Amino acid sequence: MIETQFYSVKPTDLNALETIYGGKIVDLIDSLAAIIARRHSGKTCVTASMDSIDFVRPAKSGDLLVLKTAINKVWDTSCEIGVKIFVENQETKARKHLASAYLTFVALDENGRPTPMPKIILKTKEEKRRFREAEDRRKIRLARKTKIRE
Amino acid sequence: MIETQFYSVKPTDLNALETIYGGKIVDLIDSLAAIIARRHSGKTCVTASMDSIDFVRPAKSGDLLVLKTAINKVWDTSCEIGVKIFVENQETKARKHLASAYLTFVALDENGRPTPMPKIILKTKEEKRRFREAEDRRKIRLARKTKIRE
Amino acid sequence: MIETQFYSVKPTDLNALETIYGGKIVDLIDSLAAIIARRHSGKTCVTASMDSIDFVRPAKSGDLLVLKTAINKVWDTSCEIGVKIFVENQETKARKHLASAYLTFVALDENGRPTPMPKIILKTKEEKRRFREAEDRRKIRLARKTKIRE
Amino acid sequence: MIETQFYSVKPTDLNALETIYGGKIVDLIDSLAAIIARRHSGKTCVTASMDSIDFVRPAKSGDLLVLKTAINKVWDTSCEIGVKIFVENQETKARKHLASAYLTFVALDENGRPTPMPKIILKTKEEKRRFREAEDRRKIRLARKTKIRE
Amino acid sequence: MIETQFYSVKPTDLNALETIYGGKIVDLIDSLAAIIARRHSGKTCVTASMDSIDFVRPAKSGDLLVLKTAINKVWDTSCEIGVKIFVENQETKARKHLASAYLTFVALDENGRPTPMPKIILKTKEEKRRFREAEDRRKIRLARKTKIRE
Amino acid sequence: MIETQFYSVKPTDLNALETIYGGKIVDLIDSLAAIIARRHSGKTCVTASMDSIDFVRPAKSGDLLVLKTAINKVWDTSCEIGVKIFVENQETKARKHLASAYLTFVALDENGRPTPMPKIILKTKEEKRRFREAEDRRKIRLARKTKIRE
Repeated sequence: MIETQFYSVKPTDLNALETIYGGKIVDLIDSLAAIIARRHSGKTCVTASMDSIDFVRPAKSGDLLVLKTAINKVWDTSCEIGVKIFVENQETKARKHLASAYLTFVALDENGRPTPMPKIILKTKEEKRRFREAEDRRKIRLARKTKIRE
Repeated sequence: MIETQFYSVKPTDLNALETIYGGKIVDLIDSLAAIIARRHSGKTCVTASMDSIDFVRPAKSGDLLVLKTAINKVWDTSCEIGVKIFVENQETKARKHLASAYLTFVALDENGRPTPMPKIILKTKEEKRRFREAEDRRKIRLARKTKIRE
Repeated sequence: MIETQFYSVKPTDLNALETIYGGKIVDLIDSLAAIIARRHSGKTCVTASMDSIDFVRPAKSGDLLVLKTAINKVWDTSCEIGVKIFVENQETKARKHLASAYLTFVALDENGRPTPMPKIILKTKEEKRRFREAEDRRKIRLARKTKIRE
Repeated sequence: MIETQFYSVKPTDLNALETIYGGKIVDLIDSLAAIIARRHSGKTCVTASMDSIDFVRPAKSGDLLVLKTAINKVWDTSCEIGVKIFVENQETKARKHLASAYLTFVALDENGRPTPMPKIILKTKEEKRRFREAEDRRKIRLARKTKIRE
Repeated sequence: MIETQFYSVKPTDLNALETIYGGKIVDLIDSLAAIIARRHSGKTCVTASMDSIDFVRPAKSGDLLVLKTAINKVWDTSCEIGVKIFVENQETKARKHLASAYLTFVALDENGRPTPMPKIILKTKEEKRRFREAEDRRKIRLARKTKIRE
Repeated sequence: MIETQFYSVKPTDLNALETIYGGKIVDLIDSLAAIIARRHSGKTCVTASMDSIDFVRPAKSGDLLVLKTAINKVWDTSCEIGVKIFVENQETKARKHLASAYLTFVALDENGRPTPMPKIILKTKEEKRRFREAEDRRKIRLARKTKIRE
């Protein structure tokens, strides 16, 4: 299931070039993804990682951002969430891609220890594709972690 | 040259688990890296991308964060900046790794168009290693972009 | 059409009793309703009035708020938007009513003058009921304004 | 007794039209009224309701807002507070009406239960008029609540 | 004339010791004094200096701060404003001294150049004493500036 | 040892004249000095006083502030920290003096009582000069406090 949320860019979100700064975009992504992870699991969830993110185009004050988010795959105590941000044209409603990110979250119990998360049920072709690709990205993440430890 | 900056975690930076949330950490990283890119280039710089980031351990209110940052490589109009965050123990001054990130910034002229950035001069072995690794990461980024376009 | 948005209560939203303060709730309502008015009209919209609001129950840090919103009726250059806020139980997903509000927005052109807004198309029984009730509330608002002027 | 407080509109209070947004005005009203209720009762107070509010005119960055507030009537464990906001002209000191609101607050003891509030002593004609009108507004509020429950 | 303003300490104003931090207190003082200077002069005013400040006692979340402020003396294009902050006991209304500060403000015209400010009229003994003492403090300030230049 | 920190002026830091307001500058100074005091002592530190401060020149949005800070002298349970702020020109890197301040901090133990702080070791001529001057300023501070008490 895809959740859609809106955000109107505020004067306080801008850098010296009068465009929204990267850190604010990531903040929006992380906050929303944390809500989605928590609603799915019924547990408090913390961000474990965020995959690389490209900032495709800028957004300015008053721009309407549309954030689309989905849970791609659930492992034992963690899940991958994908977030895609668009800028929506006020008059035509046309949406242009701003940035995308994949985050992993871990569900925690009352003692702050990882705890199981319910699986997701795949229905559409699209959901199955996202499920498969999440596993691919996971392998890259694990390889990355192994490399850091070495 | 490595710049070291400090940040004391505030009550407003915490999630429901009373630890600093991922979006805030990325915000700190992005703000600092933007300053470093701008000081080096003498131009306004915008974030073009951020590589994957793992949140290794949590930090709580009052914790002192130490952010170490360096320009790894400069290409024509862009550069890679690495940021490493540690939590510093108040009494022993021992530092534990919290998260690391690599960001690319593009320098812009008055019309918002990419403009050349001065090269960096490599002195130490360490700087030369970071320079080489930055090129490797760039190849992965370009491959990623090509894949997204296809 | 009903839009659903989420908000996770932050430590910075709390009063001395550790519950979310009334002003923050109204701020959330107003921000979201402004986005809905603007998306419907394709114009910048400003709040003209907010009907009375009762704060039925408190919410605390980490609580998940669910905001449901709908455009009830469109007049020439203004519309009424209804917002209902619930607290969602993390485990059972049961929702309890926190507060409700009706706001009117005016669409403005580039010179800041009221400008026409497209009408809404009523489909369901529920939408037709909200449409009728909006007109009743409008009469009360106009009577109120007349009284203030006298 | 009427308390007068000042507020200078900041760049962070503005919407895309560069005027102060409705949610911020209500936030200012609620914060101030909560202080007044608390100073009168010597107890922590929470907002129970806010009557309808009309935003009569806009205010822009740097505008000086004057908030005038008074306790109109005290019932057993609650009271009604009226807040009137004006924009003050910097040179002439002429004040123009921006918005008005009536809020009810409930005093709470250490266990968060409603607790008695001291009565107010009426001296002026003006105070007696506000006292009578507060009772009229209360009847409307109670009727509203009864209707919501049905 | 003495203006009295209130401020309720928020969770976001606290340092790691759960008391309001010095920078926030100075921020409150400066914001209020700027409003007073501007209302008196009818011009935009900027802070030129702030005399030494001692933080006599701490304040915690939910504490009610009372800020009393007065214009002590007006010179050609500048004035001295005194601000005294107290913590008010919720039940007894007893006020304890938190900090005091003297600030100087310069009035600016549309081009950002110093512009004359209207004089104040002294009525009470207290006002005359503050007027004399302001002149003494000014001499110290000028001596300080001369020393810095040398 | 002198620590250097950077800060990029944000739109939210500006007053109506579009320059950074005095309260924000003091906030930056106090936050940074608190970190330095705490890193030196290994204890939580609170601001005890701040000497007079002159705001020499304004700074606008996007300006890069450079904050240089040093511990000048340590007494039993307190220390003096000096902070100097400059605006750095983006292209030439030339630095202009914005403001300077001397603050005293007290180290506190777990019960909030003053606790000893380690001494500093003086190496350079510059450090010895700052050490002597700190003692002079301390005498003025103590005389000021005695006068307030009388």
